[in-house]
Amino acid sequence: MYISEKKIEVRYAETDQMGVVYHANYLVWMELGRTKLIEDLGFKYADMEKEGIISPVIDIEISYKSPVRYGEEAIVKTWIESYDGLRVTYGYEILNEQGALSVTANSKHVCVKKDSFRPISVKRQFPDWHEAYEKAKK
Amino acid sequence: MYISEKKIEVRYAETDQMGVVYHANYLVWMELGRTKLIEDLGFKYADMEKEGIISPVIDIEISYKSPVRYGEEAIVKTWIESYDGLRVTYGYEILNEQGALSVTANSKHVCVKKDSFRPISVKRQFPDWHEAYEKAKK
Amino acid sequence: MYISEKKIEVRYAETDQMGVVYHANYLVWMELGRTKLIEDLGFKYADMEKEGIISPVIDIEISYKSPVRYGEEAIVKTWIESYDGLRVTYGYEILNEQGALSVTANSKHVCVKKDSFRPISVKRQFPDWHEAYEKAKK
Amino acid sequence: MYISEKKIEVRYAETDQMGVVYHANYLVWMELGRTKLIEDLGFKYADMEKEGIISPVIDIEISYKSPVRYGEEAIVKTWIESYDGLRVTYGYEILNEQGALSVTANSKHVCVKKDSFRPISVKRQFPDWHEAYEKAKK
Repeated sequence: MYISEKKIEVRYAETDQMGVVYHANYLVWMELGRTKLIEDLGFKYADMEKEGIISPVIDIEISYKSPVRYGEEAIVKTWIESYDGLRVTYGYEILNEQGALSVTANSKHVCVKKDSFRPISVKRQFPDWHEAYEKAKK
Repeated sequence: MYISEKKIEVRYAETDQMGVVYHANYLVWMELGRTKLIEDLGFKYADMEKEGIISPVIDIEISYKSPVRYGEEAIVKTWIESYDGLRVTYGYEILNEQGALSVTANSKHVCVKKDSFRPISVKRQFPDWHEAYEKAKK
Repeated sequence: MYISEKKIEVRYAETDQMGVVYHANYLVWMELGRTKLIEDLGFKYADMEKEGIISPVIDIEISYKSPVRYGEEAIVKTWIESYDGLRVTYGYEILNEQGALSVTANSKHVCVKKDSFRPISVKRQFPDWHEAYEKAKK
Repeated sequence: MYISEKKIEVRYAETDQMGVVYHANYLVWMELGRTKLIEDLGFKYADMEKEGIISPVIDIEISYKSPVRYGEEAIVKTWIESYDGLRVTYGYEILNEQGALSVTANSKHVCVKKDSFRPISVKRQFPDWHEAYEKAKK
């Protein structure tokens, strides 16, 4: 199983008055993790959208272990937890600068046409993505 | 079981280039739902923080059923799914303007000291909140 | 000159670790103020977009006088500072819950086609908006 | 005059339904530009905050020339426009991936005590920052 790593420089805007990163912002970081994984596999999510296909999230599960703070550099580890040609579930671990586990999460996605939100088969429409995903999930 | 309702006017800033509300923003709406529920029970979350206690989220599960769009008014329904004096799990349903189910979710929280992030007992520290939560969960 | 008023319930997500509303978020509130002003005049910005016209911001000037805090309710006052059939400049004052002046600002906008970002004449394309703006600016 | 450069990978979360970066998000990028400039001068803003001093923004002027889009890499150029030992004004230019000018801006800041929001003299409290700022502004 291939695991990508994305460094995140914590932004001041991402903190809240608890003095830590606001919990919804980890979902944005997870997206940066996915983007990096896709790039590592040789693709760009932006290119998929240019063909009129988007990949909305269906489900997210996220557990918060310890906060990340401003001034730190976090790491998002992302991998393909499961993939069946239609649906993909990504797994995530976010580590803070000391290497402590901050967040574990997974997110399930489909691919749909931007106009209609009707699902498409990745396997049929993007055969090279399909092949790379099949390989990376092992 | 008491169910609070919070109206949300969708903000332009909350959309993304899919033309729908960006998925992380529903977590912000869930927080507005919690805040409203707490207000309906006669309390203010801001008052808890003034006493040096914060209530970070531990786990979130969220399922996206259909998108909400700019120009619509959404409704966040929030209730207490479980509560044991220490931990509380809130349940949520977000409906779009047509009344269609857009999001279902739940989030688990504890209360901790702001300085140390050490957990406290709601039952002992905020007995009136405790009583109200016990009643509202039924 | 017509001045609209929009109440804002400060969101936790809008704070930063200074313990006050993060400075970029006032721009979002200014947008809510504009939206309210337009509604007060009998229109909906979302309807303009449905006709393929968007109204991007060209310039913003903003001065921060005193912070707004979580738990407060702020008010955004919005008016039309100038309008010439093509360009509109909105003026803003944001007051905190105690009525103290928190932010003064103005923003200049044009209307453009969504596809091409080419400017259009409000006067010609939306004559009823034009009339209402002419009246409201006095 | 020293000009720092900060690369920005555009985030999906930063777009809106216009299909471009939402206008308030450039203020976040300007902050990343300031942070980078301060780092280039040998300091860390987070360290200043650890000493109980924060540096809120007083005024911002921003002009939007052309949009930045998802999938692009933007560059924020930041420099010290003026500095008098108490107040600093930063200047900014944001370029899109093709090198076209997207945003010009400036922001004025003071330094204050986090507890009281009372201004302090950078020159007296942080003499090494003062010296570096004096040099960088030339």
